[in-house]
Amino acid sequence: MENHRERIGIWIESDKIQTIIVSIIVFNAIMLGLQTSNYLESNFGQVFDVLDIIIPALFLIELLIKLYAFDYKFFKSNWNIFDFIIVVICLLPESGPLRVLRTLRILRVLRLIRKLPRLRMLVEAVLDSLPSLNWVSLLLLLVFYIYGLIGTLIFGPLFDEWFGTLGKSMYSLFQVMTLESWSMGIARPVIKEFPYAWIYFLTFIMLATYTSINIFIAIMVNTMQNLATAKEDQHLESEETEAEKFFSMPKKEDEILSILKDIQKRLEKIEEKK
Amino acid sequence: MENHRERIGIWIESDKIQTIIVSIIVFNAIMLGLQTSNYLESNFGQVFDVLDIIIPALFLIELLIKLYAFDYKFFKSNWNIFDFIIVVICLLPESGPLRVLRTLRILRVLRLIRKLPRLRMLVEAVLDSLPSLNWVSLLLLLVFYIYGLIGTLIFGPLFDEWFGTLGKSMYSLFQVMTLESWSMGIARPVIKEFPYAWIYFLTFIMLATYTSINIFIAIMVNTMQNLATAKEDQHLESEETEAEKFFSMPKKEDEILSILKDIQKRLEKIEEKK
Amino acid sequence: MENHRERIGIWIESDKIQTIIVSIIVFNAIMLGLQTSNYLESNFGQVFDVLDIIIPALFLIELLIKLYAFDYKFFKSNWNIFDFIIVVICLLPESGPLRVLRTLRILRVLRLIRKLPRLRMLVEAVLDSLPSLNWVSLLLLLVFYIYGLIGTLIFGPLFDEWFGTLGKSMYSLFQVMTLESWSMGIARPVIKEFPYAWIYFLTFIMLATYTSINIFIAIMVNTMQNLATAKEDQHLESEETEAEKFFSMPKKEDEILSILKDIQKRLEKIEEKK
Amino acid sequence: MENHRERIGIWIESDKIQTIIVSIIVFNAIMLGLQTSNYLESNFGQVFDVLDIIIPALFLIELLIKLYAFDYKFFKSNWNIFDFIIVVICLLPESGPLRVLRTLRILRVLRLIRKLPRLRMLVEAVLDSLPSLNWVSLLLLLVFYIYGLIGTLIFGPLFDEWFGTLGKSMYSLFQVMTLESWSMGIARPVIKEFPYAWIYFLTFIMLATYTSINIFIAIMVNTMQNLATAKEDQHLESEETEAEKFFSMPKKEDEILSILKDIQKRLEKIEEKK
Repeated sequence: MENHRERIGIWIESDKIQTIIVSIIVFNAIMLGLQTSNYLESNFGQVFDVLDIIIPALFLIELLIKLYAFDYKFFKSNWNIFDFIIVVICLLPESGPLRVLRTLRILRVLRLIRKLPRLRMLVEAVLDSLPSLNWVSLLLLLVFYIYGLIGTLIFGPLFDEWFGTLGKSMYSLFQVMTLESWSMGIARPVIKEFPYAWIYFLTFIMLATYTSINIFIAIMVNTMQNLATAKEDQHLESEETEAEKFFSMPKKEDEILSILKDIQKRLEKIEEKK
Repeated sequence: MENHRERIGIWIESDKIQTIIVSIIVFNAIMLGLQTSNYLESNFGQVFDVLDIIIPALFLIELLIKLYAFDYKFFKSNWNIFDFIIVVICLLPESGPLRVLRTLRILRVLRLIRKLPRLRMLVEAVLDSLPSLNWVSLLLLLVFYIYGLIGTLIFGPLFDEWFGTLGKSMYSLFQVMTLESWSMGIARPVIKEFPYAWIYFLTFIMLATYTSINIFIAIMVNTMQNLATAKEDQHLESEETEAEKFFSMPKKEDEILSILKDIQKRLEKIEEKK
Repeated sequence: MENHRERIGIWIESDKIQTIIVSIIVFNAIMLGLQTSNYLESNFGQVFDVLDIIIPALFLIELLIKLYAFDYKFFKSNWNIFDFIIVVICLLPESGPLRVLRTLRILRVLRLIRKLPRLRMLVEAVLDSLPSLNWVSLLLLLVFYIYGLIGTLIFGPLFDEWFGTLGKSMYSLFQVMTLESWSMGIARPVIKEFPYAWIYFLTFIMLATYTSINIFIAIMVNTMQNLATAKEDQHLESEETEAEKFFSMPKKEDEILSILKDIQKRLEKIEEKK
Repeated sequence: MENHRERIGIWIESDKIQTIIVSIIVFNAIMLGLQTSNYLESNFGQVFDVLDIIIPALFLIELLIKLYAFDYKFFKSNWNIFDFIIVVICLLPESGPLRVLRTLRILRVLRLIRKLPRLRMLVEAVLDSLPSLNWVSLLLLLVFYIYGLIGTLIFGPLFDEWFGTLGKSMYSLFQVMTLESWSMGIARPVIKEFPYAWIYFLTFIMLATYTSINIFIAIMVNTMQNLATAKEDQHLESEETEAEKFFSMPKKEDEILSILKDIQKRLEKIEEKK
C-alpha cells in the first residue's frame, strides 16, 4: 500500500507530468489574456466557459493525487500550501455578485512560480531578504507616519484631497517619495498657502531618499550574497561566476592558514630533534 | 546614598521598565493617528485630552528619575540630551495662538528612535556618514548657487514664479534636479523666451546628476563599511554575514604574513646551525 | 586563385580601407542629419539625392568584394550577417507608398557599431548579459501580465484609454513603473471610482521597483565581470585596472596554495631522511 | 633678483594670503546673492558698485603678483590658466548692451574650486573619469542620433513642437530619457496619430536606461578606484578606509608570494646540503 502511494507520488512529480501541468498553466494564462478581447469573448465565449471548468478541474485532480500520495506530509512545504490555497480559491463560484471575484481566476497564473524552480528561487530570495529590511523599513515608516501626522494637522483643513486624512496624507507622501508631480502638483500649491511648507517637502524628500538608498543597498548586499551562496546550497548546473569565486575566497584562506600551521609544527619538530 | 541612586538607575533602565516606556510611546503614536479622525476626535475628544496630560507626565517622571539617578552624568550622552529636549518641548502649552504648536506633540514619536537600539544605530550611522559627504555636498551647493544666481538674473524678470528671487530659483532647481516636470513645466516655457536656455537646463541636470551619483556612492561605501565594522564595535547577536567576512579578510592575511615570517626565521636558524 | 581571393580579403579589411568606410558612414550620418533641415533639403536636394545613390552603391561594392573574398565563410560571423542585412535593406526602393520606408536609410548609421571594435564589444557585452536576465525578466513579465489582466478586467470598462485592452493596460503599467504621472495622471482618477485601487498601484510599484533593482544588480554584476574578463580574452592595450586586479586575486591564491603544498612535501621528505 | 621673486612667490601662496583670498571669494559670492534682492539693490546699490570694482581689482593684483613671481611657469598649471581666464573675463566691461554679460561676474565664485584643494580634487576626479566614459557615451549619442532622425522624419510634420527639427527631437528624447512627462506629455498624443509609436518610445527608454546604467557603473567603478588610489598619490591626512584596505590587498599577496618563494629556495638548499 505504502509502496503504491510512493509510486504515484513519483509519477505525479515526474518531469513529464510536471511539464504538462506547466503547459496547462501557460495555456490558461494565454487564454485569460485572449478573454479580455471583446471580439474573441463574444465569438468564442462558450469555448472559454468550457475551458474555465476543465482547467481548474485538472488542477484539482493533480492536487487530490498529491494529497493521496503524500498525505499529511503535503502540508509541510510552504509552496504546497501556497499551491493548495490557489487551487481552492479558483474553485470558488465566479458568478457571485462582485465582478472582482472573477479576477481571482488570474491567480492561477501564480502557480507558474511554484512550478518553475528558478522562479521559485527568485521569489524565495526576495522573501529571505525581507527580514534584513526590517529596521530600515521601520525607520521609513516612522518618517512617513510623523510627516503624515504633521501634513494632516497643518495642511489638512485647506487641502482635503491630498492631506484630508492620515491615509490620504501617507498616500500623497508616497507620491512625493516617487517624485511624481511632487512640486508642480502638490508642493507649489501648498507653499502658496503655507510659505514655510518647502521645509516640510524638502526635508521629507531628503529623508525618504536617504532611507530608500539604504534599502536599495540592503537589497543589493543580500542579492550578491544569494548569488554566492545559491550554488553551494542548491547544486545548480550553471558555471561558477566571478562573484561566487569572490565570496569563496575566505575558505581558500582558511586552507592556506591550516597548511602554514602544519609547516610551523613540522619545523618545530625538526628544531627539537637537533 | 550613592548606592540607592545606582539601584534606581539600574531599575529605570531595566528591560521591564524600558518595554513599558516603549509601549507608551507606541500607544501615544497610535493615539496621535486616531486623533486625526474627525469622528473619533468629536466623540472621544475628552479621553484624548486626558491622555494628552497623562502621557507627557509619565515621560516627565521617567526623565526626573533618570536625572536623580545619573545626576550631571545624564547630559554626557547626546541621546539623553535629545530625549530631554523632546520631553521639555512636549510640556509647552499647546493652547497657544498658533495651530502649528500642537503639532510639536508629534515629536514624542521620535523618542522611539532613542529607545530602540537598532533604530538608534541606523540614525547614528546616518549622522556618522554626514562628514564624508561634506565636500561633495559643498560642490553640489556651489552648482546650485551659481545656477540659482544665473537663473535669477536672466530668467527672473520674465518668470517671477520660478526664478523671481534666489530662493525661488534654488527651489526650482531642486525640482529640476528631481526631474519633476522639469521640461514640460519649466524648461520649455523658458526656452520659448530664451532660445539658448536649453544649455542652462541640460548642463545643470548633468552636473546635478553627476554630483548626486557621487553622493550616492559615498553613502554606499559608508554603509558597507558600517556593515563591516558594526559587529566588531557593538557585539550584536546576529550571525556573521558574507559582507563582514569580506572586510575581515585583511586580518587573516596579516596572520598568514606573521606565520610566514616566523617560518622564515626558523629556517634561517636551521641553516645557521648547520 | 585562392591566393588571389585571400589577398583581396586582406586588402578590403586593411586599416586604410576600413577607415575610408567608417568615414563614409560618419559622412552619411551627418548628411542624414542635414537632410532634416528644410532649408538645406530644398536648396541642395539634388546633391543629397545623388549621394543617396552613391553611398549605398559603395556599401554594396564593399559587400560584394567581401562575399567574393570570403565566400560562404562570410556568413559564419553574426556581425557579417548583420552588415549584410543592413546593406540589403538600404537598397530597397525608397519611393514606396509609405513615408516610413525612407527612414530605413537611417539604419546605415548602425554599420558604425560593426566597424568600431570598442562599440562592437559594448554591444556584445549587452547581448551576452541578456541570458542572465532571463528569469528576472520573466518574473517582471509575470507581474506585468497579472496586473495587466486585473487592470483590464476591473478598471477597463470605466477607463478605456488606460485599461481598455490588455495592451493598453500593460503600456499604462510600464508608464506607472517609470513613475511618470502615475499618481496625478492615472492612480488618483482611478481611486476616485475604485477606492481600493491604491492597493493595486502601490503593490505594483513595489513589486516592479523591487524586480527592477534586481535587474539593475544583475546588469551591474555582469558588467563588472566583463570588465574583469575583457582583457584576458581580447588582449586590449589598456592598463590593468583595480577592478581587474580584484577579480584576478583567486589565481594568486591558487599559486600560494601550490607553493605551500610543495613546501609541505619537501619538509616531509626532510623528516623522513632523518 | 631671482631670490626676490621666489620670496614673493612663497608669500603670495602662503596660507595667510590664500585664506584672505578665499574669504574675499566667499564674501563676493554672498554679495552676488544679496544683489538679487531688489530691496538691497535699490538701497545699497552704490556700495555694491564700489565693491564690484574693488574685488576684481584685488583678484587682478593677486594675478599680477603671481605672474611676476612665477613668470612663464605660471601657465604650466591648467588650474592657473583656469584662474587667469576667470579673472580676465571679470574685467570685461559689464555695461555692454547684453544683460547676459553681467552674469559673467558670477563665474568669480568658480575660483573657490581652484582655491580649496579638496574641491579641486573632486573636480579633477570628474575630469579624469570622463575618458573612460568615451565609448558608452558614443553609444548613447548614436542611440539619440538615430532615434532623433527617425522622430524628426516620421513625427516631425505632425508634432512640430517636439520633433520639428533634429535639435527639437533630441531635446525631447533627453526629456523622455529623464522619464519626465514622457507618456502623458509626449508618447500618448503621438501614439494617437501613429499607433505603432509605442515601439519607438519603449525601445528608446530601454536602450537609454540600459546605457545610462552602464555609464553609472563606469562612474561608480572609477570613483571607487579614485578612493583607493587617492591617498597613495596625494598623501592626505585622512585615516585608511576599509575601501582602501580592500584595494591594497593584492600588494600583501605579492609579499606573501615573495616570502614563500624565499622559503622554497632555503628548503632546496637544505636538501642539497644533505
